Amino acid sequence: MSLKPISPSIPKTMYALVKPNAAPGMEMREVPVPTIGATDVLIAVETASVCGTDLHIYHWDEWAQARIKPPYIPGHEFCGTVAAIGELVQGIAVGDFVSAEMHVACGHCLQCRSGQAHVCQFVKILGVDADGAFADYAAIPASNVWKLSPEISRDFGSLFDPFGNAVHTVLSGAIAGQSVAVMGCGPIGLFAIAVARACGAAKIFAIEPNAKRRELGKTMGASVLLNPASDDVEAEIKAATGGSGVDVLLEMSGHPSAIQQGFRLLRMGGRASLLGIPARAVEMDLANGVIFKGATIHGINGRKMYETWFQAEALLREGKVDLSPVITHRLPLAKFDEAMKLLESGEASKILLTVGK
Amino acid sequence: MSLKPISPSIPKTMYALVKPNAAPGMEMREVPVPTIGATDVLIAVETASVCGTDLHIYHWDEWAQARIKPPYIPGHEFCGTVAAIGELVQGIAVGDFVSAEMHVACGHCLQCRSGQAHVCQFVKILGVDADGAFADYAAIPASNVWKLSPEISRDFGSLFDPFGNAVHTVLSGAIAGQSVAVMGCGPIGLFAIAVARACGAAKIFAIEPNAKRRELGKTMGASVLLNPASDDVEAEIKAATGGSGVDVLLEMSGHPSAIQQGFRLLRMGGRASLLGIPARAVEMDLANGVIFKGATIHGINGRKMYETWFQAEALLREGKVDLSPVITHRLPLAKFDEAMKLLESGEASKILLTVGK
Amino acid sequence: MSLKPISPSIPKTMYALVKPNAAPGMEMREVPVPTIGATDVLIAVETASVCGTDLHIYHWDEWAQARIKPPYIPGHEFCGTVAAIGELVQGIAVGDFVSAEMHVACGHCLQCRSGQAHVCQFVKILGVDADGAFADYAAIPASNVWKLSPEISRDFGSLFDPFGNAVHTVLSGAIAGQSVAVMGCGPIGLFAIAVARACGAAKIFAIEPNAKRRELGKTMGASVLLNPASDDVEAEIKAATGGSGVDVLLEMSGHPSAIQQGFRLLRMGGRASLLGIPARAVEMDLANGVIFKGATIHGINGRKMYETWFQAEALLREGKVDLSPVITHRLPLAKFDEAMKLLESGEASKILLTVGK
Amino acid sequence: MSLKPISPSIPKTMYALVKPNAAPGMEMREVPVPTIGATDVLIAVETASVCGTDLHIYHWDEWAQARIKPPYIPGHEFCGTVAAIGELVQGIAVGDFVSAEMHVACGHCLQCRSGQAHVCQFVKILGVDADGAFADYAAIPASNVWKLSPEISRDFGSLFDPFGNAVHTVLSGAIAGQSVAVMGCGPIGLFAIAVARACGAAKIFAIEPNAKRRELGKTMGASVLLNPASDDVEAEIKAATGGSGVDVLLEMSGHPSAIQQGFRLLRMGGRASLLGIPARAVEMDLANGVIFKGATIHGINGRKMYETWFQAEALLREGKVDLSPVITHRLPLAKFDEAMKLLESGEASKILLTVGK
Repeated sequence: MSLKPISPSIPKTMYALVKPNAAPGMEMREVPVPTIGATDVLIAVETASVCGTDLHIYHWDEWAQARIKPPYIPGHEFCGTVAAIGELVQGIAVGDFVSAEMHVACGHCLQCRSGQAHVCQFVKILGVDADGAFADYAAIPASNVWKLSPEISRDFGSLFDPFGNAVHTVLSGAIAGQSVAVMGCGPIGLFAIAVARACGAAKIFAIEPNAKRRELGKTMGASVLLNPASDDVEAEIKAATGGSGVDVLLEMSGHPSAIQQGFRLLRMGGRASLLGIPARAVEMDLANGVIFKGATIHGINGRKMYETWFQAEALLREGKVDLSPVITHRLPLAKFDEAMKLLESGEASKILLTVGK
Repeated sequence: MSLKPISPSIPKTMYALVKPNAAPGMEMREVPVPTIGATDVLIAVETASVCGTDLHIYHWDEWAQARIKPPYIPGHEFCGTVAAIGELVQGIAVGDFVSAEMHVACGHCLQCRSGQAHVCQFVKILGVDADGAFADYAAIPASNVWKLSPEISRDFGSLFDPFGNAVHTVLSGAIAGQSVAVMGCGPIGLFAIAVARACGAAKIFAIEPNAKRRELGKTMGASVLLNPASDDVEAEIKAATGGSGVDVLLEMSGHPSAIQQGFRLLRMGGRASLLGIPARAVEMDLANGVIFKGATIHGINGRKMYETWFQAEALLREGKVDLSPVITHRLPLAKFDEAMKLLESGEASKILLTVGK
Repeated sequence: MSLKPISPSIPKTMYALVKPNAAPGMEMREVPVPTIGATDVLIAVETASVCGTDLHIYHWDEWAQARIKPPYIPGHEFCGTVAAIGELVQGIAVGDFVSAEMHVACGHCLQCRSGQAHVCQFVKILGVDADGAFADYAAIPASNVWKLSPEISRDFGSLFDPFGNAVHTVLSGAIAGQSVAVMGCGPIGLFAIAVARACGAAKIFAIEPNAKRRELGKTMGASVLLNPASDDVEAEIKAATGGSGVDVLLEMSGHPSAIQQGFRLLRMGGRASLLGIPARAVEMDLANGVIFKGATIHGINGRKMYETWFQAEALLREGKVDLSPVITHRLPLAKFDEAMKLLESGEASKILLTVGK
Repeated sequence: MSLKPISPSIPKTMYALVKPNAAPGMEMREVPVPTIGATDVLIAVETASVCGTDLHIYHWDEWAQARIKPPYIPGHEFCGTVAAIGELVQGIAVGDFVSAEMHVACGHCLQCRSGQAHVCQFVKILGVDADGAFADYAAIPASNVWKLSPEISRDFGSLFDPFGNAVHTVLSGAIAGQSVAVMGCGPIGLFAIAVARACGAAKIFAIEPNAKRRELGKTMGASVLLNPASDDVEAEIKAATGGSGVDVLLEMSGHPSAIQQGFRLLRMGGRASLLGIPARAVEMDLANGVIFKGATIHGINGRKMYETWFQAEALLREGKVDLSPVITHRLPLAKFDEAMKLLESGEASKILLTVGK
């Protein structure tokens, strides 16, 4: 198929942050601007944000070694302006300010054809399995592009991915009038607190050992902050819930001990939504924590395509949530080493990388 | 069975507002204080509020003539203090500040035994089918009594019935991030606006011809006020929803034309929850309004027992909603004629009647 | 875009049943074989079946006059063999035996992007709004094509559309262990009986005035047959359900009186799924039939894309339902006049038209 | 409270199987017939069946040591005839043939008041925490008694408890048209196969190492039998499901390795319902088995009160399932030692104990 020629204003090469080989580190390189197919869109990246996943890739840990195939361009949280569109693309125009769902679903499997594309059997994640957005330009399938409302702060454009994770987690069950325990106040945990707050949750307990993150929990709307290292979390939550435990557990940490504690906090008949990814198998007391308890558990992967995006947009557009407090740092893309260090230290929450300037 | 003797501090007679016979009007009378059975509770009423149903009974309209069997004591929205308990009652003590679910379900039918007691086939409504709460004392089955949290304004105690109607209506489907049309700004419509707002609704359109009520819609959290007598409601809502129509229709008016308009406002695949009771059959364009639209409709009756009460309490206790603006008048019970006139005139929204003082 | 050249074995012209102009009737004509785009598939039709919609189009009734734009080729229930594929088509090969979802969703609207493509705001129905399948060949978007399992009788291939309607209707709520009233024993009503039976429904009441159709209800699995013209349907169903009424109402007739009766048959808290399309507005007793009843109503349009297709295929593939009894006649496409007469007379249930032989 | 005098035809003493002290074994003893309160029912037990729980109590294993307080009468699966009723009991009469839900919920907690009495925080299980049904008579709260339809085989009366477990497990999510893996063919697993079959499941895979039990799986409706000791279960199920894995996992074994395998068999986006109780914590690969998979998990405890009972009754009354093949032995209550041995050996599936003859 003939590709639509890319506009003459688009350069032939660009700067990108590249994972060059199977070893720790990344580096800025000059590389060709990606070409696009008939159903793709080329986006001039404005802002990209750094996810914990990027840190794994940077450090080249076990997970990264098994999954990542260098050389490639990481980065899966971003926003930017459409620079060119493929010839079959409809409804998107050059100049649109957009973000994108980076889980590219196959479109053909059982899941894709029955409303579960977010758990496509053959998903390819841009920025993980293929070139992503830590670059001046990114090529994205048009059906994955999300036009951003001008009513939403431009700062939040790159955050739809992690904010969508939070929305998906919180809204995977009833939340209005429910008491909620949020395990972990990383960026997605913090977003989850804000979403729960905006959607009518009753008491929100934020459980987090890092003091800085815990305080951000308060800013985002938590009712009670608990430090698992020093507070008797179970006793306090039982006392505050009339002895029942919480209606809803939002597991955002991936830490085995937090997961185990979370299920002890959950009331009989409660709902647990699990987003945090444990690095290894977790010893689960299924008898008492799940079965006798009559618990419902939702494993949360990505964002529903695109129900979650509509919800996320509505919450931001109507001013129901403010993501600003979570954005702790802004750096140019070239300062990625500094960003990784800030993230690793626990000092940063969400870091925005500005691109191409 | 022997009944627990009622405490000597409780008088033998009391004042009650009575529907004396099959004709318009009500009157204050001195009547015996009700006796209670082993599983009942006697409540000293502090506040009762007036519902549109009471106005139907007062005026002795067609519906009232078919349903009501005078003489009896109306009133089904109230709060007060427990004055005595039957000998088998557990978990409720003299002195507790309480309200009550006045739909007394049979406990034996299919619905009662499968989580749908709110649509019990053999329900008896206190204040409609039997003596209610427009009196110094009311006798209520213990299982219907709801203990009120001290964190909730004492003013809101009598409002759990209509507020619960609103909570049941709004939360009968997804609401977070959804656009909502509320047809009718009577007290329950106003409460519904506040609940939708508290639970993360996106744009809330309040449609109401009465200017005073419509303005209260704004106070309670509506985004857009529309007057069906002068505004092009459909055009405005279509424009504000990108042409789709609203995600959720909350029908709180019972007016045939509002119901018909509501379904035209609803988007393809939307949800309609119907609470307002039309006085007669309604011509429904089922083909376009429901079937081709793939709409989901929920008929809303009373409050879920007692899921709705838990939700209502959580929303009030956590300060998610403020019912104060809807309370437009306070009168002593003896001024019931004035209350009925205020209600009829459309000048009042919710009127609190203070009892026994 | 260059189109993939159609194989030399495909002729330039074909026979098709055409709606030639804005008047009653149809006629066989020799017309060009349709061309296909890059994402389309050309199918050599083997069997097409006749739907009530086709009869409306044939007779050129009020609905048809408002919707149909002649000249065009009707027919939306069919199966056949893939004769050619567009150059971007994946997962479908020449020679595959297929059927297709003829609701072509836009892919861009809120509904399409949130799992509700079956109520796409901009849907185009092939065979209604554009050329369909009463022809030797039909051109269909690849994403709408459904490969048929060889384990399913070839006879049922053209029936996925109406059978899918039935599956969608029955499975739009709980059915296992539920008592069910099916209003109307046209082909989709009959399929619905079989699906309800296969999915664990308790008593199934088939309500239908036409004796032949009613008897087919028995064959398909109804427990009790009722003739609304002579039986006291409400009394019999109340008696057979312990006075409660049915758990589930499946409205497959579109007749106002059947719809009204259906809601009287439904128990408090029951579920009604409405598929039959009434030709005009229906007087609904919303107060007693829906609101006080706490009923849930689902408007049913088409088939969920493609959840319904997976369910339909599983039920047929595993032999859970047998559609054969509903196929009462087989005719060559050229005998369409006879088919329309048979359908009109009420003598036929589902008529298969063989094509191209 | 004065108790209704028990009819003179009821003896003062009875025979009961008693757990006499904190050690292995049980013994038949002559004990007083239990007295009943105003809201209780006395039932002359006809048949009781033996559950794996009874075997734990018999053997006095670790779980039993922690939970059971001897002396008391075990037995929680039974049916019999009402011999006397308390004075406040309505809707139950002497002579009624009944079974009972032995989970006695408190009626006051959050769960009890919001449709989740099956996970009451303060539940007391008759036959575990208090006297049960291995006796000539059992005293049961009237609200827990279930009248048995005369259309249901008298043999199945004592099986509502385990059959209800199966119904609850299978119907905790969609089942029609779904592929299902049943881990474990003990009695509840076998019942689950029959329920899945009756409710429209597609392929049902029964995974069980014991050949006799596995064969019963076939009788009850399994499509494919797999022996985890010799078959490559994962490869076979993947092959039979087009590579996806099963839609639904029903975990009925409680074995850690089966639970782990079950989650590997489950497709992306699938549903797992866990009923089998593992004796210890289980290493769970939450990342791959639950979170990335987007799985939904339901912990299953008891039976929903009383939705499950209505469903179970409907399935039995309408002849949708036949429980007979699972009843492998019948013995008089006095032969309990033999029953325990048969159960332990794996030779028996469900054993009926006849009482009082």
